[in-house]
Amino acid sequence: MHILILGAAGMVGRKLTERLLRDGHLGDRAISGLTLQDVVAAPKPLDATIPVTIVTSDFADPLGAAPLVASCPEVIFHLAAIVSGEAEVEFDKGYRINLDGTRYLIEAIRAIGDGYRPRLVFTSSIAVFGAPFPDKIGDEFFHTPLTSYGTQKSICELLLADYSRKGFLDGIGIRLPTICVRPGTPNKAASGFFSNIIREPLAGHEAVLPVSDDVRHWHASPRSAVGFLLHAATMDLATIGPRRNLSMPGLSVTVGEQIAALQRVAGPGVVARIRREPDPAIIGIVAGWPRDFSTDRAKALGFTTAEKTFDDIIRSHIEDELGGEFVR
Amino acid sequence: MHILILGAAGMVGRKLTERLLRDGHLGDRAISGLTLQDVVAAPKPLDATIPVTIVTSDFADPLGAAPLVASCPEVIFHLAAIVSGEAEVEFDKGYRINLDGTRYLIEAIRAIGDGYRPRLVFTSSIAVFGAPFPDKIGDEFFHTPLTSYGTQKSICELLLADYSRKGFLDGIGIRLPTICVRPGTPNKAASGFFSNIIREPLAGHEAVLPVSDDVRHWHASPRSAVGFLLHAATMDLATIGPRRNLSMPGLSVTVGEQIAALQRVAGPGVVARIRREPDPAIIGIVAGWPRDFSTDRAKALGFTTAEKTFDDIIRSHIEDELGGEFVR
Repeated sequence: MHILILGAAGMVGRKLTERLLRDGHLGDRAISGLTLQDVVAAPKPLDATIPVTIVTSDFADPLGAAPLVASCPEVIFHLAAIVSGEAEVEFDKGYRINLDGTRYLIEAIRAIGDGYRPRLVFTSSIAVFGAPFPDKIGDEFFHTPLTSYGTQKSICELLLADYSRKGFLDGIGIRLPTICVRPGTPNKAASGFFSNIIREPLAGHEAVLPVSDDVRHWHASPRSAVGFLLHAATMDLATIGPRRNLSMPGLSVTVGEQIAALQRVAGPGVVARIRREPDPAIIGIVAGWPRDFSTDRAKALGFTTAEKTFDDIIRSHIEDELGGEFVR
Repeated sequence: MHILILGAAGMVGRKLTERLLRDGHLGDRAISGLTLQDVVAAPKPLDATIPVTIVTSDFADPLGAAPLVASCPEVIFHLAAIVSGEAEVEFDKGYRINLDGTRYLIEAIRAIGDGYRPRLVFTSSIAVFGAPFPDKIGDEFFHTPLTSYGTQKSICELLLADYSRKGFLDGIGIRLPTICVRPGTPNKAASGFFSNIIREPLAGHEAVLPVSDDVRHWHASPRSAVGFLLHAATMDLATIGPRRNLSMPGLSVTVGEQIAALQRVAGPGVVARIRREPDPAIIGIVAGWPRDFSTDRAKALGFTTAEKTFDDIIRSHIEDELGGEFVR
């Protein structure tokens, strides 16, 4: 089976690639090849036993999609996007990449025809929802995004469902919680601080907390995100019907609870590296974000998180990213 | 005030045009000019006291939108669309007109800039919802359209909200119930029979009923539709917030109740002209359509129907379209 990952150089893309190469199969099928696309070259995996092709291309290039799907990959992971903060500032760029790019992709798939109907796993976002919310956002709550990014994700969900309904592809959209702890360096996502306040102190660095401790948010670990993607790629969609976009399970915690978990796992010295510095722009964006979900449908369809508590999330970060060590 | 009507040659467009010319004003402002756009020439109104410009153009022409908004109309009614049945069969045409055309329009508005921020009244549809439904669809129910038409309308709602949020225009989307009784001749809408079974028998002609009598649906008269449009164009949107798409009030009745109303208003001789001839294709499409709504938000914002019962709808059709007479 050939697999295409769009946006493979991003954090989730890299984690997914590692996992696929480690497993060597997806579900019960051996992986015969992996194509890794991104606007910057995805890192070439060392000692991979599976042929890996690196493609560097602009996802918003109208002519870019056809070559990517020409080899008819059976599974396509569509993780390509510019993040919320950037899409808000760069209005045209956001629509070009997050909306037009997706349309080029699904049109290129459709253009192949001839029975080609790949599993398309699309990473949507909880940013499709906009305040005010119920205490828990249910599976039938409407989309009123308060960012252009959320608008673009919501539109892509609709397109994915329609193209699936018409039989042009076999799509499933999964709304990832905010991924925490996001490894690496801060990106332009307005949600970055949720990870920064854990990752940076554990690495011995100061982190800025731009919102108050009572801000509640919805999280899942990178391990969970990869698990969701693999399940979405392999689950039986024959009976899912036309509602092909799902909010994924996660943990609802406040910033204060995140910090308390950090204190339990790593101690007060680490927590002392968090510096409170309110940022009205971030506070404004985050105020419009969801805080908690009931994800009954996803759970019934077999999606599960890798963690039970935020302490688990911190521990898995220390294990996966820091080799079990952190700066006390 | 200058007003632009897109899709002016359609039924709702013609009704709206008649009303605006009759009133001579919109809200408390005199109308100084009216531009009527459609892909076929909208009928030139006779003895209009307001300058009327007829524009024949393809709404899906990327270069067509800029000239339409170059004169900076203060109010734009966007009624341009191909209907559900046609958008389902002509997949590319549906996306081109119902989605791309709308994007060209809002981009042309945005490109003017310089403080230009017209009221854009967009006619969406209850086809944004897809079965299964609750008994009544509330104001916060999610969009899972089961047609490409519904998908395109839902996407345009999202775009309208985002462009409004960014201050590029002052948009409001209104989800019209099925308009009944639709005057004129049948079009390609799968919903056509809801009107045909009233209009044709009243005109002395046979009408085909392709579904069973217990099919329940959501209706409003042409009078109500025009009333919704005028209210949407003139209401104060300063405090509406970011949720700018609303289900309009209507009447929930079964086909059997429609026929009973026809019997009360016009007698059994008229009802006898309805011929039952089940059509699996129509039955399939209609099965995915909404049946009833609670429209609290629209009502709180001042939207009201012109009718209280389906008998009223039939009477207003006889009055407005048949000069008070029908074929007994």
